[in-house]
Amino acid sequence: MLWINGAFCDDTKKQFMADDRGLLLGDGLFETFLCLNGRPQFFEEHWQRLTRSAKTLSLAIPFSDKEIHDALCVLLERNNSGPRASARLSLTRGVGPRGLMPPAPTEQSPQIMLTSVPVALSSPKPIKTILSSVRRNEGSLASQMKTLSYVDNILALSEARALGADDALMLNNTGHVACLSAANIFSLKEGGDLITPPVKAGILPGIMREKIMGMAREMGFQVKEEAQNIQDFGQGICFASNSLMGMRRLVFDEISPLSGELETAYDRLAKSCQSFIQETL
Amino acid sequence: MLWINGAFCDDTKKQFMADDRGLLLGDGLFETFLCLNGRPQFFEEHWQRLTRSAKTLSLAIPFSDKEIHDALCVLLERNNSGPRASARLSLTRGVGPRGLMPPAPTEQSPQIMLTSVPVALSSPKPIKTILSSVRRNEGSLASQMKTLSYVDNILALSEARALGADDALMLNNTGHVACLSAANIFSLKEGGDLITPPVKAGILPGIMREKIMGMAREMGFQVKEEAQNIQDFGQGICFASNSLMGMRRLVFDEISPLSGELETAYDRLAKSCQSFIQETL
Repeated sequence: MLWINGAFCDDTKKQFMADDRGLLLGDGLFETFLCLNGRPQFFEEHWQRLTRSAKTLSLAIPFSDKEIHDALCVLLERNNSGPRASARLSLTRGVGPRGLMPPAPTEQSPQIMLTSVPVALSSPKPIKTILSSVRRNEGSLASQMKTLSYVDNILALSEARALGADDALMLNNTGHVACLSAANIFSLKEGGDLITPPVKAGILPGIMREKIMGMAREMGFQVKEEAQNIQDFGQGICFASNSLMGMRRLVFDEISPLSGELETAYDRLAKSCQSFIQETL
Repeated sequence: MLWINGAFCDDTKKQFMADDRGLLLGDGLFETFLCLNGRPQFFEEHWQRLTRSAKTLSLAIPFSDKEIHDALCVLLERNNSGPRASARLSLTRGVGPRGLMPPAPTEQSPQIMLTSVPVALSSPKPIKTILSSVRRNEGSLASQMKTLSYVDNILALSEARALGADDALMLNNTGHVACLSAANIFSLKEGGDLITPPVKAGILPGIMREKIMGMAREMGFQVKEEAQNIQDFGQGICFASNSLMGMRRLVFDEISPLSGELETAYDRLAKSCQSFIQETL
């Protein structure tokens, strides 16, 4: 079961026109929600990011936040999504004439779709991470949006899996660390500095990233958005975040021994993150 | 009328599944053919580029070159495409489970589609060009492929049109010139050097680019694939190329006066390109 443009329908059907620009050019946006007990988490934050990106792309959203929230809750119920599900909102530009140029705003027919699928609790194991050969494009605003153009990320993840790893750490073209294929990254340092790449490094401003930054500040960590090379990033406890997994440790091939104090600081942060996620509902 | 997965059908129908990865993640490829008198031009060259990129993406092409060529010719006839048409081949990964990772090759169901539309002769007027704020990602192989992830290019073109220009010149993240939103670029210098960015600058290895390079060499020009900044690029006659328009001059806001000799050299090259396109059929 999925929801598309205001109606619930059987998801096995062909639903998209052959000339939808989402399909032909990756022209659109998406959001992924963690849903706990049938409710999307941080809906307003996701919606704000979606509307901000849609404005940059001159892409209208054909429903209100309340309409989408309500539709999502009904969908989760109809799909018996259980205690833990992943929901996806996809927004495409809709059909258009030949060529790259989007139709004028008044002539656009954006398509909006909601899907959901139950997901297991994220593994507590660290993410075995390689360094990707695919760079993030810090020179395009698209890197700061969750667009339908995701080939770079697919290439990076496929590269990691082919090498027996779980995920890939992507640098940008200046050689600074950026993100995993679908997660933000942090490095927790001896002394309490928590470093994460700035948005202008070509990263998605993650909802969970923002939450962790706020939470860490309240806990007394010094949160800094700073460009780092891979060597500096690797000094400390490295972890990744996204809406579905919350926080998860990274392991690289070569790990320097870490102090007990740093491990304790990380555990405090991780426990706090876990509670925080549960408490928001 | 379009052709999809082996069958001709009415193009107004919904043809794509809601969980096609082409739609959800821009996971696929396309090619654009100039078609003259019902025949696709440089079909073999386009097919070779497609198969090369498909290999990089571990994406199977479910039909042979002969099958696609034949289908395209029949489609052009059924669509009464006339003396001059643009045809597009779109190849998507097909449906997949949640997440970025493509299904194993044996479990993929790629979708392939052919469409065509008559097009007018490209304008002889120069392309009014601005410098884009969107950079090409020289750090990803995807920039060297015609993938369905085209948001950067859409952003660049939209930016140009909003400023009253025809197209945008994109630099890469090192500040070297790369391409327009959907065309390769050249700069013809006094003395006969013809400079074009190398593929590793993050550009699509265009079919027409390759043809122009070969043709220019035969005519005695010194063709060089070299990284150039915008100032160096602007010294000379700048032009763009793609399969649909062949060659077309660029004009920027500020143009340095050009010598008559250089104008003559450009005219020779442009005439030769025009004849070449006609002669291939």
